[in-house]
Amino acid sequence: MFLKNAWYVVAISKELTNTPLARVVLNEPLVLWRSEDGLPVALEDRCCHRQAPLSAGKVHGNTIQCGYHGLVFDPDGECIEVPSQDRVPPDARVRKYPLYEKYGWVWAWMGDPLKMDLTLIPDTFWHESDQWLPVADKFYVHSNYQYLIDIQLDNTHSRFVHPDTLGNAGSLRHSPKVERVGETVHNTREMRDSDPPPYMVNATGHTGNADVWVAWTYYPRAGLITFDTGIAELDGGIFEGKDCTSYKVFNTHGITPETENTTHHFWVSSRNFSLNDEGVSGVLSGIRETFLEDVEMVEAQHKILTALPDRSRIDVNADQPTIQARNLMEKLMLAEQSL
Amino acid sequence: MFLKNAWYVVAISKELTNTPLARVVLNEPLVLWRSEDGLPVALEDRCCHRQAPLSAGKVHGNTIQCGYHGLVFDPDGECIEVPSQDRVPPDARVRKYPLYEKYGWVWAWMGDPLKMDLTLIPDTFWHESDQWLPVADKFYVHSNYQYLIDIQLDNTHSRFVHPDTLGNAGSLRHSPKVERVGETVHNTREMRDSDPPPYMVNATGHTGNADVWVAWTYYPRAGLITFDTGIAELDGGIFEGKDCTSYKVFNTHGITPETENTTHHFWVSSRNFSLNDEGVSGVLSGIRETFLEDVEMVEAQHKILTALPDRSRIDVNADQPTIQARNLMEKLMLAEQSL
Amino acid sequence: MFLKNAWYVVAISKELTNTPLARVVLNEPLVLWRSEDGLPVALEDRCCHRQAPLSAGKVHGNTIQCGYHGLVFDPDGECIEVPSQDRVPPDARVRKYPLYEKYGWVWAWMGDPLKMDLTLIPDTFWHESDQWLPVADKFYVHSNYQYLIDIQLDNTHSRFVHPDTLGNAGSLRHSPKVERVGETVHNTREMRDSDPPPYMVNATGHTGNADVWVAWTYYPRAGLITFDTGIAELDGGIFEGKDCTSYKVFNTHGITPETENTTHHFWVSSRNFSLNDEGVSGVLSGIRETFLEDVEMVEAQHKILTALPDRSRIDVNADQPTIQARNLMEKLMLAEQSL
Repeated sequence: MFLKNAWYVVAISKELTNTPLARVVLNEPLVLWRSEDGLPVALEDRCCHRQAPLSAGKVHGNTIQCGYHGLVFDPDGECIEVPSQDRVPPDARVRKYPLYEKYGWVWAWMGDPLKMDLTLIPDTFWHESDQWLPVADKFYVHSNYQYLIDIQLDNTHSRFVHPDTLGNAGSLRHSPKVERVGETVHNTREMRDSDPPPYMVNATGHTGNADVWVAWTYYPRAGLITFDTGIAELDGGIFEGKDCTSYKVFNTHGITPETENTTHHFWVSSRNFSLNDEGVSGVLSGIRETFLEDVEMVEAQHKILTALPDRSRIDVNADQPTIQARNLMEKLMLAEQSL
Repeated sequence: MFLKNAWYVVAISKELTNTPLARVVLNEPLVLWRSEDGLPVALEDRCCHRQAPLSAGKVHGNTIQCGYHGLVFDPDGECIEVPSQDRVPPDARVRKYPLYEKYGWVWAWMGDPLKMDLTLIPDTFWHESDQWLPVADKFYVHSNYQYLIDIQLDNTHSRFVHPDTLGNAGSLRHSPKVERVGETVHNTREMRDSDPPPYMVNATGHTGNADVWVAWTYYPRAGLITFDTGIAELDGGIFEGKDCTSYKVFNTHGITPETENTTHHFWVSSRNFSLNDEGVSGVLSGIRETFLEDVEMVEAQHKILTALPDRSRIDVNADQPTIQARNLMEKLMLAEQSL
Repeated sequence: MFLKNAWYVVAISKELTNTPLARVVLNEPLVLWRSEDGLPVALEDRCCHRQAPLSAGKVHGNTIQCGYHGLVFDPDGECIEVPSQDRVPPDARVRKYPLYEKYGWVWAWMGDPLKMDLTLIPDTFWHESDQWLPVADKFYVHSNYQYLIDIQLDNTHSRFVHPDTLGNAGSLRHSPKVERVGETVHNTREMRDSDPPPYMVNATGHTGNADVWVAWTYYPRAGLITFDTGIAELDGGIFEGKDCTSYKVFNTHGITPETENTTHHFWVSSRNFSLNDEGVSGVLSGIRETFLEDVEMVEAQHKILTALPDRSRIDVNADQPTIQARNLMEKLMLAEQSL
């Protein structure tokens, strides 16, 4: 049901404090906190004694104390104190989840610790950079995670779901180039001489057609999709690597299954132009409403697919990117289950 | 579980506009709208591409466009446009439900289109007539549809569920005449020299006993129960067909399963007297509260039957009409399933 | 799943009036009322005719009348009237539950009436006495009943769940004495020269250490736990039966499963000192908030155990009382099922 040997975004960095945070990921209840030494910690959210949630307990220094009988656990999940007796019983421990923190997000490795691989997480420098200005938030989505991945990877929906912001006519006319690169899928849609997306017109004041692009990479083993999008002056040669006026927006979507039917959606949308222009910031902060249009659509789709799981369906040409992405995820899950 | 080869009321006529309406009927999600040419349309409420609900899309003229990738469907459910490509794939269609609209209601045929039969729907002229003044509404009921049918067909409940309006003592004393007529059940309760129901006393000012009647017909293949009720002057010969002073109220109940546990209840209650008397209208508009007493009872009954499905039960003499109605429904469902 | 041949508290006496009360106990819907002759009555909450809940009906004198078709039942559950006919059908009855009422509570016997045994219910005189002043209430708990029993029987939680009221350090240092007495478990924790629980310090003004005790008895066949707790002057000889200054609080917990996942919690907490002191009453009425801390903990525990039913767990020394109580309950249930 879920790919386990993978990283998933489990929190925004600033969510982690010395107050325990309960969060369910891939059906596993986690307790998250930041220890006294500044490191993020994730354990199973249950005491190994009577299964009270550790998130109902208290953080002391680097440890967490269960709120029921006071058992104390260190950041590795080892029980180091039982208040009602001198000795800690053997096997008194709970599972620890390895974490990785960078650029404002915290990822957890949900599978076999021996297979943990930090190189799977791409560099998302646009989250925190002098040259980029991000907008960021998280959503709680009542949908299977796969539908939320699909809608991100399929640009032809923008004209209909986001007609006033992302949706340009060009996205329906230009075919994308899709390629598998290792354990990722990469998709480029170069729209030469196209109408720019409405929100870019509003943000840049650009008039007339432009060279427009949307490129994304899907990292199933990092729970991520990254977007490189933008517009450039018409025939300035952007696609040939020439220097020309261009405006870029880079997005990151951390898509983390909570359960089969619910998903955590972490996102960042960052621009590299007019960083001090409040008007432009106003336009681009509207991306939150735009992303919520996606959420509304996949929640509606989830309801129908839950009610009518077996109805026939057709594919269209524009489904190639999402089909490749689903194939990769399926291949990774099969490989994992055959281990 | 449900009789499929049957008509069911799915909407009040005025509910259908060029804004799509989502409604679940017999566990099937439908999208309903009124096309530019004025006809009501019902399709499966899912796009055949990625199963987004068509009700989240938009009506254009006679067609509906999916809100996800913009596929366009005509009123027959055929996909006639895929915006991201020139060709429409074969098999790009969704189910169409035949509709029938009359007297302010819209019925859908939920089964095999080849077995569709318009003569199954009776004439309910009292919904729209110069001689009749209707009160109408719809309820959403948290109960299996069968309990809602039972309570309509069983007049002995009125004395207890509706003591202040419909319940007269006569209904407990006079036995009904029940007969199967084709694929309907017909029930007549002639109450000679009986106390009139309290709401008729309030509406007509009648004093003393009267000749009172309640006759209903159950049309399982039209999702309907019709009522012919009234009071006449005592010994005026109403039951022998003589001309005498009488006051009639005709009701229609469209009882449409949404799921096993929820039901759409459409109803009309219409009178043929004192059409311009606001005081009488005030009394008779109270039927809404009276019908809600039925809803409250069947919802309570549904909860107990869900919690205790296997408890023993007894029948009483007054159950003959509802038992005959259930037998007919069961016979029709068995016949349908053995096809 | 539940011990059936047992008494369970089903109502506070003053809850029972001539308005029917619906309450589910061990998954069984009951209707409860007080008859004209002053006795509490409990029947199955369903009419034997069409399974409408009798609690939607009306009490007349000693009988209850179904609100659907008016069938009348006597306090033994026998149907004595069917309004639409002269004869009452044979087998027209519903189950009657034997009740016992004392000291402000009403117990129902939920199993085989032939095994009913009133001696199983202990004397809880502190509910109503000139010498005792009770605080009482009931909670509705979203947890399996067993977790609520566990937390009552385990005093080592107090230091963590109730640090400001019940939790003293002594409860972690002194081992309890546990013994099986017939079909009960009895547990005594004598804490000589211990810090008193904070709420007793607040209520009595006692300074310094005291002789402190908590003794409880678990009556699985009465759905009860009783507590005998208190503090006495240090070295006054309370544990040797000597006369000395002491302050006692006796508690009763009636723990009644509603379903596997929900529980009725009836409780009384009563003191034998400073009966007219409003300040002391103010302190001791705070027990309500303290007991709600238990509820909050077991509801959190229930959620984790529902999500992760099969995780490993460890026991600690302080679990002996709760393990013995669980063993007794299991033994009683096995014996009952092998009958």
